[in-house]
Amino acid sequence: MGLPSIAEKMAKQQKEIAVSEFFERNKQVLGFDSMIKSLIVAVKEAIDNSLDACEEAGILPEITVRIDQIDKTEYKITVEDNGPGIVERNIANVFARLLYGSRFHAVRQSRGQKGIGISAVVMYGQLTTGKPATVRSKILDRDVAVEMDLILDTKSNSPKVMRTDYVIWEGKPHGSRVAVAIKARYISGKQSVFEYLKGTALVNPHAQITFIDPSGKQFVFKRATDVPPAPVIEIKPHPEGLEIGALMGMAKITKSNRMSIFLKNDFSRISDRVAKDILEKASVPPEKKPQTMAIEDAKRIIEAIAQVKIMAPQTDCLSPIGEVLIKKGLKNVLEDLKPSFYVQPVTRKPKVHSGHPFVVEVGMVYGGQIPPDSQVEILRFANRVPLLYQQGACAVTAAVENVDWRKYGLEQRGGKGIPFGPAVIIVHLASTKIPFTSEAKEAIANVPEIRDEMELALRVVGNSLRSHLAKGVRRSKIKEKFDIVQIVLPKIAEKASGIVDKPLPDLGPTITKIMDVVWIDDKVEFDKKRHSITIDIYNYTPTGKAFTLYAVVPAENLVLGGINPRPTEVKDGRIKWELKRIPSTEKATIKIELQGLDKDAYDENELYASGIDSERIVGAEPLPGDWGIAAAVIEGEEEKAPADEEENGVDYDDAKEDISNDE
Amino acid sequence: MGLPSIAEKMAKQQKEIAVSEFFERNKQVLGFDSMIKSLIVAVKEAIDNSLDACEEAGILPEITVRIDQIDKTEYKITVEDNGPGIVERNIANVFARLLYGSRFHAVRQSRGQKGIGISAVVMYGQLTTGKPATVRSKILDRDVAVEMDLILDTKSNSPKVMRTDYVIWEGKPHGSRVAVAIKARYISGKQSVFEYLKGTALVNPHAQITFIDPSGKQFVFKRATDVPPAPVIEIKPHPEGLEIGALMGMAKITKSNRMSIFLKNDFSRISDRVAKDILEKASVPPEKKPQTMAIEDAKRIIEAIAQVKIMAPQTDCLSPIGEVLIKKGLKNVLEDLKPSFYVQPVTRKPKVHSGHPFVVEVGMVYGGQIPPDSQVEILRFANRVPLLYQQGACAVTAAVENVDWRKYGLEQRGGKGIPFGPAVIIVHLASTKIPFTSEAKEAIANVPEIRDEMELALRVVGNSLRSHLAKGVRRSKIKEKFDIVQIVLPKIAEKASGIVDKPLPDLGPTITKIMDVVWIDDKVEFDKKRHSITIDIYNYTPTGKAFTLYAVVPAENLVLGGINPRPTEVKDGRIKWELKRIPSTEKATIKIELQGLDKDAYDENELYASGIDSERIVGAEPLPGDWGIAAAVIEGEEEKAPADEEENGVDYDDAKEDISNDE
Repeated sequence: MGLPSIAEKMAKQQKEIAVSEFFERNKQVLGFDSMIKSLIVAVKEAIDNSLDACEEAGILPEITVRIDQIDKTEYKITVEDNGPGIVERNIANVFARLLYGSRFHAVRQSRGQKGIGISAVVMYGQLTTGKPATVRSKILDRDVAVEMDLILDTKSNSPKVMRTDYVIWEGKPHGSRVAVAIKARYISGKQSVFEYLKGTALVNPHAQITFIDPSGKQFVFKRATDVPPAPVIEIKPHPEGLEIGALMGMAKITKSNRMSIFLKNDFSRISDRVAKDILEKASVPPEKKPQTMAIEDAKRIIEAIAQVKIMAPQTDCLSPIGEVLIKKGLKNVLEDLKPSFYVQPVTRKPKVHSGHPFVVEVGMVYGGQIPPDSQVEILRFANRVPLLYQQGACAVTAAVENVDWRKYGLEQRGGKGIPFGPAVIIVHLASTKIPFTSEAKEAIANVPEIRDEMELALRVVGNSLRSHLAKGVRRSKIKEKFDIVQIVLPKIAEKASGIVDKPLPDLGPTITKIMDVVWIDDKVEFDKKRHSITIDIYNYTPTGKAFTLYAVVPAENLVLGGINPRPTEVKDGRIKWELKRIPSTEKATIKIELQGLDKDAYDENELYASGIDSERIVGAEPLPGDWGIAAAVIEGEEEKAPADEEENGVDYDDAKEDISNDE
Repeated sequence: MGLPSIAEKMAKQQKEIAVSEFFERNKQVLGFDSMIKSLIVAVKEAIDNSLDACEEAGILPEITVRIDQIDKTEYKITVEDNGPGIVERNIANVFARLLYGSRFHAVRQSRGQKGIGISAVVMYGQLTTGKPATVRSKILDRDVAVEMDLILDTKSNSPKVMRTDYVIWEGKPHGSRVAVAIKARYISGKQSVFEYLKGTALVNPHAQITFIDPSGKQFVFKRATDVPPAPVIEIKPHPEGLEIGALMGMAKITKSNRMSIFLKNDFSRISDRVAKDILEKASVPPEKKPQTMAIEDAKRIIEAIAQVKIMAPQTDCLSPIGEVLIKKGLKNVLEDLKPSFYVQPVTRKPKVHSGHPFVVEVGMVYGGQIPPDSQVEILRFANRVPLLYQQGACAVTAAVENVDWRKYGLEQRGGKGIPFGPAVIIVHLASTKIPFTSEAKEAIANVPEIRDEMELALRVVGNSLRSHLAKGVRRSKIKEKFDIVQIVLPKIAEKASGIVDKPLPDLGPTITKIMDVVWIDDKVEFDKKRHSITIDIYNYTPTGKAFTLYAVVPAENLVLGGINPRPTEVKDGRIKWELKRIPSTEKATIKIELQGLDKDAYDENELYASGIDSERIVGAEPLPGDWGIAAAVIEGEEEKAPADEEENGVDYDDAKEDISNDE
């Protein structure tokens, strides 16, 4: 039968494989699956390293990327930064050993995490050109820079130093430079190095990036701000989403010798009281040694964690871009398309996946010269890194496809899939851990918690879009009537009464008969760093109208300068008025002053109304059904509602006037 | 400034990470990103191992998959096979060490290759439940089975054996069984374990799979054939697509001490003569020691390889499903949908990517109860394994999206994207190396060579679909006329001539005036394991017509029983006739007999014509523009064209008759 010898024969072939050999043979999981892409991957990994190092050291990044063509299919990529440099004894391992790095165990937002990226580039370079990589590094407390030629020995996953030299690096107090030759193809246009750098600049406005292309042409992406992102703080793991095996593993190696201390010290957001609650619910004695934790203990602790209220993770381990910079970035990058509308971006409150905090941010532009008949373009970013490939595999795409965009004014077959229309959507995920689908870090895995947050943020942006579009459509329909009652009718009345020498008739009943709507006319003016918003509410109906009005304002970087009349509530970037009855044919006016915003940060009012038939109001949309989800991120001091009055409805100071008296 | 201390501080945090720790923290790259998916991944990895082991040992697989619910979110998965078993000393490493396996270096088709799969499942089980996996194995030459409880120590990537026992395994001469508890969710319907097993059975008709679901219900997927797939042969790397670094690495460790011997012995398809050619072109002396190969030598050798004609790789390292079994499988699995048309599947000729041979196979069904208004469903398979997730990331999807399906009768906005219509497309990639986008093996990377082949295969299938649809449309349009000339007109003529007692008039001129087309009426009959094809060609035009006709027949498992008249050429599953002039109003008939096919394997003729205005012929499509690509895989002995006659055009033996004489 030959079977025993087969089991034995198979046994002889079973052996261990070095991780480097594995990745060398599966280079596509690192992103090296085409010559065009390989070039971008190499640039990306080097830049990620440079930006991370600069930010950790609190340095404003200055990065130069240079691409030289060596022959038909060989390019040399050189990336130089002004980071802190790498100490000599670690250079070889950092650049030529896979799974070697400093950020793997840290719970905080960073671009690189896995200790694979740049070493993988070095490995791919030597695989495709046979050449070593050259690394130069200078740290501040040494007089000279060190320069090495490095090879990664894939059979053993260890670096081989081919050459070490010490050199004077003119004008460089500290920094590093890596040069790698790889088989590649250089292109311009979409999914090119240039586009990649443009995207990087968009989400890293504090970085200055210089690009020298193969023809020697130089492009500079200037830094848009001299303020580096707030430094991210390393936190302990949050207990939410913890797995049994992970808990047991931590318990085994903890330095604490009581369960209660272990929970408090080794996790974030567990206080003495919370630890006590958890252990009580789990029926685990607080004095028990963590090292003796049994499976059943672990199981019950995990269950208890789900029942006990634990604070959301602190957010200083994250570095979201922010609503203001997203809008600014979009205006910068997409100005060629002259969009007619920049939807107010959304930065969501932090949530947790598998113990890791994350924040979702979404922006959108609409109209102008964006092709109206194509699929909506989706720009994806993770921890301030553009994602150019594998859109189809990404949770961002899944989230966009899951939203029924027909509700928000885009075309979409069956309410599923990527919508069509003149729009660009930008989605950024910031997290202490981005769950990429592969080591190539091209797509975010479809983790339900993350995808759900993205969908919610997209719906908020969708509501803004609908509000904008509906405004236009309904207004233009009724505009004609409005012109009649506002301009033509009074003029006719005036002339007519002049001719027949009779007093001006009361036009009110005629006007309300023609219009029969509450008409809201609003505008935004910007002057001396202030946005002045005026909302005129004309009651062109036969009866008095009282209803609730909401205005959406940016939740971020905002100082509310003055609101008149006083709102009922200000929360999460929403101002709410329970308006007093406006008599038929009369007008009410609301004035708001916003301070501290760039001109671009606010250019169109987004108004919603409730307590009034939506057919009877023009200029404010009905309150969205999913309005509850639109809670924005910041609840700053300046936004606290001045709710010291307990009256039902607010007063207008001087907003009353008879609107039938034209002008 | 603090910079030196930062570089030093960062240096202290830089350290190596075990590959197991890496994958534990990035479990989503292994496919563990949701509880539903985790269950399928676990089942899939265990089955892949069982099927591979059985096939290597030449055993017809009998596999039992059992899923037990332990508590709300914990399930135990047990997979048992009748494979050769694993020798005791290797069990721990095979099941609880990542990157340990027997198939990593072998160039031949297999499901598992990376030595990650089953160990990753064991790791994920212990992470989410804290429990070890239990493995039982019996090899033929031992009396007892060995059973072990195993844990993977993720800090060191090494197995820990918690228990070893020796047990009697009743009725099991050899085999293995693995049981793992994991956190998961069990569902039915799409992307369920049941669907996964159904797909597995579809592309592994030689395997018997029994499934016992959590409620204890048992399903058996019976084997459809007792013939195991031909054993795959391990080959040496093919030189096409070789990288410089890989060549230099091989040269360094070869046992050959002359370049010429090295090329001949260490690669497939390099003969003495080819080696000589390559080295001559590369200006590398044949007697040079490979161990001294310089980068420049390697570069020139790679360039020379691209210039020298090297045979395509042998295909006995591959195990495609085959056109017949694809069609059979589709009929089995999709019979509920009652498709109205099974497009003739295509098995392409082998091609090479990065030195690895591969074969693309495509099938398609159309109509029936397949939803007419949804996106076309795509079923993806790689090395006989169904791919359920990451469709958006897959080269298969990219290929489908790149084809302009509007040409072939499906709806598609802008000629890009997944088309809409009542169709299901099946794509199978067989290769000694599937370039998956991640370790989860869910999607095929977008490697240009592979995607191009898929597109070509899809176009061939698209042509068949168009041919089928066009036939229907044009026929139904002209059917009315046809009925008149075939049935009504002769009847009227007969009656009229009877009444007026005059001879039957010549209807020819009238008929050709009404029709003015060449009308092809064809049918397929099956009896006694033979397909009989009859093609009647009516010339309903005023002038004689000579043109070229093509019929497409399966290229696989086919014996051409007889063709009358003799064709001009038979090649790649296409029969070609240069038809002699058919006089106006006359008819020609072609008869073909096919043997050795299942009834289902051929049910509709696919006819093309050239040398005639396409408006003037009904029942045969114009030759497709991309016809050249449709070369199918097998050029069997029985298909050699009987081209012993050198006349221009073929004779009809007895096909002439006056078609104006009805019946």
